[in-house]
Amino acid sequence: MRVAIQGEPGSNSHLAVQEMVGNAELVPCSLSVEVFERLAEGAANAAVLPIENSLHGAVADHYDLLLNHQVRIVGERSLRIRHALIAATNVPIEQIERVLSHPVALSQCRRFFLAHPKCRAVPAYDTAGSVKLVLASGNPAEAAIAAPYAAEVYGGTILRRDLEDDPQNFTRFLLLVPTAAAPLDTLAAEQPVKASLAFSIAHRPGSLVYALSLLAEHGADLTRIESRPVPGRPWEYVFFVDLRMQSLAGLDAVLQSLSRECHFVKELGRYTESVTVETTAAEPARV
Amino acid sequence: MRVAIQGEPGSNSHLAVQEMVGNAELVPCSLSVEVFERLAEGAANAAVLPIENSLHGAVADHYDLLLNHQVRIVGERSLRIRHALIAATNVPIEQIERVLSHPVALSQCRRFFLAHPKCRAVPAYDTAGSVKLVLASGNPAEAAIAAPYAAEVYGGTILRRDLEDDPQNFTRFLLLVPTAAAPLDTLAAEQPVKASLAFSIAHRPGSLVYALSLLAEHGADLTRIESRPVPGRPWEYVFFVDLRMQSLAGLDAVLQSLSRECHFVKELGRYTESVTVETTAAEPARV
Repeated sequence: MRVAIQGEPGSNSHLAVQEMVGNAELVPCSLSVEVFERLAEGAANAAVLPIENSLHGAVADHYDLLLNHQVRIVGERSLRIRHALIAATNVPIEQIERVLSHPVALSQCRRFFLAHPKCRAVPAYDTAGSVKLVLASGNPAEAAIAAPYAAEVYGGTILRRDLEDDPQNFTRFLLLVPTAAAPLDTLAAEQPVKASLAFSIAHRPGSLVYALSLLAEHGADLTRIESRPVPGRPWEYVFFVDLRMQSLAGLDAVLQSLSRECHFVKELGRYTESVTVETTAAEPARV
Repeated sequence: MRVAIQGEPGSNSHLAVQEMVGNAELVPCSLSVEVFERLAEGAANAAVLPIENSLHGAVADHYDLLLNHQVRIVGERSLRIRHALIAATNVPIEQIERVLSHPVALSQCRRFFLAHPKCRAVPAYDTAGSVKLVLASGNPAEAAIAAPYAAEVYGGTILRRDLEDDPQNFTRFLLLVPTAAAPLDTLAAEQPVKASLAFSIAHRPGSLVYALSLLAEHGADLTRIESRPVPGRPWEYVFFVDLRMQSLAGLDAVLQSLSRECHFVKELGRYTESVTVETTAAEPARV
């Protein structure tokens, strides 16, 4: 199995691959659009992409890419985001002067930087990539902030764990396959199922409420709604919804009734819901 | 009147200030959060902030800031985003080697860069700020991409207009004042009104659909819905809605009925709807 991700080995996306499909050959991509290109050309059989974070919200670009490519969501997983301080060797934190990481990760570790004013935050393009840079430089005054998993992948040393200010930091990842390869019949008909749909509607008063009420009528529990602009049509939107259904039959009824009312409806995938909130207290460290 | 914006003089936000409040003393801020701080401390009486773009979607941070500060929306305006190539003097485009601008503006002018391979795109922190940099350097091989208005503000020369690939590029701006200063009684009771609300609901099956159906019952036309995560409560959301109402009385009924059903409801503002889609064909140039 070859799985495409955006980012470097050792990243949270790589960790999500481990958790969702186990050991797989990784196909790292610089840009998210390349993940979809690798899937389309067969260089990867599957992809794992973050879709939302519990602090920062939707990864908007990924919604747009899902809409415009022939892929299906076949699974989801939420992952606790953990930030560790990683260096080449076991040096005292007091000797660290430069701490590299992605700007978002740096901004999530404010308390650490306040407590260690000698450590200067240095923005870099990627969390796991920062670990790679720090290990390559061999400078004992440099460290990186990344998932503990990055230390395992690159052979770095974890100087401190759990640097993040807010432990309620989760990212939801999706497992994608090319539409042609999506197994539509692996879900049991009578089991609860989660589904992701995209649709757009004529802009008339009440049209969105009416479309959503159709979902409710068929027993769909709307767990998420996201809107994205339609390029070329200012102030028109595509709505992305996640639904929890009691059975596959209910989902088919939802799709049929939406299709009658909407400009377009696209099923992005049907899959088994994953546990979406982990406890953070007694969880063992990952590495 | 002192109006805070995020960004430099000559930016699209500055142009939005001109269009919404006319000549005003500008209070430029580097970060969006500073705009709210200037309002709170009285250094500005009003603020103008972008909230969504017709190609890129919501400015997510601005939704979060609106929720957490004591401000009211008292007006809106959408502005066509135009990109011009601006230099210190009138040099032929063939002599330009470096073109500075914000990465988003650069990415919206792909056709120009394809047609002018000698021009290298150089990312900078701000569109109008790039014009300032280019005029300060005086290097005749440098130009910037920014609103034509930036040329007027800094005294630059427009080498070419309408560099943007997609002319259907609009940004919606909001006019904000401190809540204590918001005039609640300037809108005529029997006139149509637009309102922006934020609310959160218990996560039960059907609860969002039910809340939205309350809006529809009172004649609210939902023109926009945006969801943002609740920090500390993974996979719970605050919903931001824009409503078009036939009268203020209807809006009060909406607020009362939402308050009975929601964890919390915040009215972000009530204001007169602006024309939201301009024609782009026969419009005269701005400068």
